Amino acid sequence: MDFSDRMNIYKEEINDQLQSLFEKKKPEILYEPMKYAINIGGKRVRPILCGIFFRLFGGDPARVLYPALAIELLHNFTLVHDDIMDDDDLRRGNKTVHVKWDLSTGVLSGDGIVSLAYKVLLKEKFERSDEIIRIFTDGLLEVCEGQAYDKEFETRTDVTEEEYLEMINNKTAALLAVPAAVGALCAGAGDEQVETARDYGRALGLAFQIQDDLLDIAGDEALFGKTYGSDVAEGKKTYLYILAVKLMSRQDLGVFMSIAGKEGITRDEILQVKKLYDKYGIIEKAGEEAAKYIKKAESLIGSLDNELDCSELKQFTEWMLKRKF
Amino acid sequence: MDFSDRMNIYKEEINDQLQSLFEKKKPEILYEPMKYAINIGGKRVRPILCGIFFRLFGGDPARVLYPALAIELLHNFTLVHDDIMDDDDLRRGNKTVHVKWDLSTGVLSGDGIVSLAYKVLLKEKFERSDEIIRIFTDGLLEVCEGQAYDKEFETRTDVTEEEYLEMINNKTAALLAVPAAVGALCAGAGDEQVETARDYGRALGLAFQIQDDLLDIAGDEALFGKTYGSDVAEGKKTYLYILAVKLMSRQDLGVFMSIAGKEGITRDEILQVKKLYDKYGIIEKAGEEAAKYIKKAESLIGSLDNELDCSELKQFTEWMLKRKF
Repeated sequence: MDFSDRMNIYKEEINDQLQSLFEKKKPEILYEPMKYAINIGGKRVRPILCGIFFRLFGGDPARVLYPALAIELLHNFTLVHDDIMDDDDLRRGNKTVHVKWDLSTGVLSGDGIVSLAYKVLLKEKFERSDEIIRIFTDGLLEVCEGQAYDKEFETRTDVTEEEYLEMINNKTAALLAVPAAVGALCAGAGDEQVETARDYGRALGLAFQIQDDLLDIAGDEALFGKTYGSDVAEGKKTYLYILAVKLMSRQDLGVFMSIAGKEGITRDEILQVKKLYDKYGIIEKAGEEAAKYIKKAESLIGSLDNELDCSELKQFTEWMLKRKF
Repeated sequence: MDFSDRMNIYKEEINDQLQSLFEKKKPEILYEPMKYAINIGGKRVRPILCGIFFRLFGGDPARVLYPALAIELLHNFTLVHDDIMDDDDLRRGNKTVHVKWDLSTGVLSGDGIVSLAYKVLLKEKFERSDEIIRIFTDGLLEVCEGQAYDKEFETRTDVTEEEYLEMINNKTAALLAVPAAVGALCAGAGDEQVETARDYGRALGLAFQIQDDLLDIAGDEALFGKTYGSDVAEGKKTYLYILAVKLMSRQDLGVFMSIAGKEGITRDEILQVKKLYDKYGIIEKAGEEAAKYIKKAESLIGSLDNELDCSELKQFTEWMLKRKF
């Protein structure tokens, strides 16, 4: 069985456990859209990561890990509300909650999901439950801060590289740091190990987000479900955009700015941006930045106790970051 | 010093403590609207109630009670999002967050407030912190459920009295039961006492909400800041509305239905509804229902240990429910 088959098995298990949270819950007007939002799916990488760290540090593999499910709920809460804030109609090909129902339902079912996340988090008692809840809560607040920066960046063209990295550190990396640290805590790992797990999750999240930015325009369109160049079309402040502002000549930047976010953008214009990116080695530079965090994640794994079996974590890291571009 | 002066002193203390939560917080784009929402104010009855139960069961009066502040934040979170769902432009004479800023800011600052609520809740460790967090979380989910029922009722004319009471039990009473129970828990009260506190909070909340419904049309307009008959104008499913559907003849109900929620409703029409309410003794019946819960709250106070000094709690109850109508 190769690793992605194993990931699928984990995913199915997690989906079953998530389903059971919604059985016979009332009022339906609240729980139906909550369940719908959860069922839109995704790869469940956060609870899987939580489980991997839990087992790595000697947790019982057969145990349902409620904090892992809680983190998946937390992640889905952010998606439901982000879709409202970004005015997105579709998520993974399905109508978003506020489009399928209405704005109120979108707001309220997001609130319901975050409430349920805490309820699930509290289902089981661990020796260091206090710290688990604290890390979970810090993650939630951090994601809100990250989303605020992201919204702020929409109206600015002078976002620096440091600001951008800080933003994705809050918005994306936090929700990978939390499951890693929580998984370790649930298994009773020591402070230093928990810290390593958390740093690993952060590095993984930063690498993942920069890769995601890259894949918008550098990826093989067929391999990646997203529309080619959609970030460019939206004028999204991605890592590539930030580097463009930093590196391009006045003239090229003028061209870039006139295209990025333009209404009725053409494929040719997107390819023109791609050429500009290539001219300044922006895609390469972004790739190097992602590689830096991948290396950091790997070296953090390497720093763990020699007696631990890190093979699953190594495979997971590779699997998370192997997407072609 | 009469009791409402004392309530004002408590309120100012709580306001100061709330302010300190927002010092130098960044990003401003997130924390400014959060602070604004908190500063719109209100009487801070929830943290005050929490403090009263805390002192009643022997808690140190000088101690800042973070769970009390957390509950006030939780309450304000519900207001920010409810204002979006109800499309309300004003709250206590101030622009609502999503109107003063925009929809995204409304959604996100609500999310930020609930995150901060948990962060503040976790600031201090109590012997029974687990249970405090659990009660807090159950309250949050219950409020979401109550809000869902409330939204559902908007599209229905056949809401029963039982359904209505269940809804306000979730939406209003839960957030008075939580501070009462949490205050008792923070002070180390026993299970039975905590249960009594919680039941008291619920009874108080039900009485309060039914009175609030009553005051829309039965209150002395000058005494009460709200526009006379605004619930009638909105066609809101209040306790009075529910009783109208239950008690009125077909013909009177036809008249009532043609007025409630009508666009461009006149003062005469509102007075016509008032007359119909009077004809069926609806205001009286609602008053009796409120009185039932007031009595229940009082009898719960009476059931507490004789050695406890309940004078403050008694005064608080009277103060909460004394509004003229």
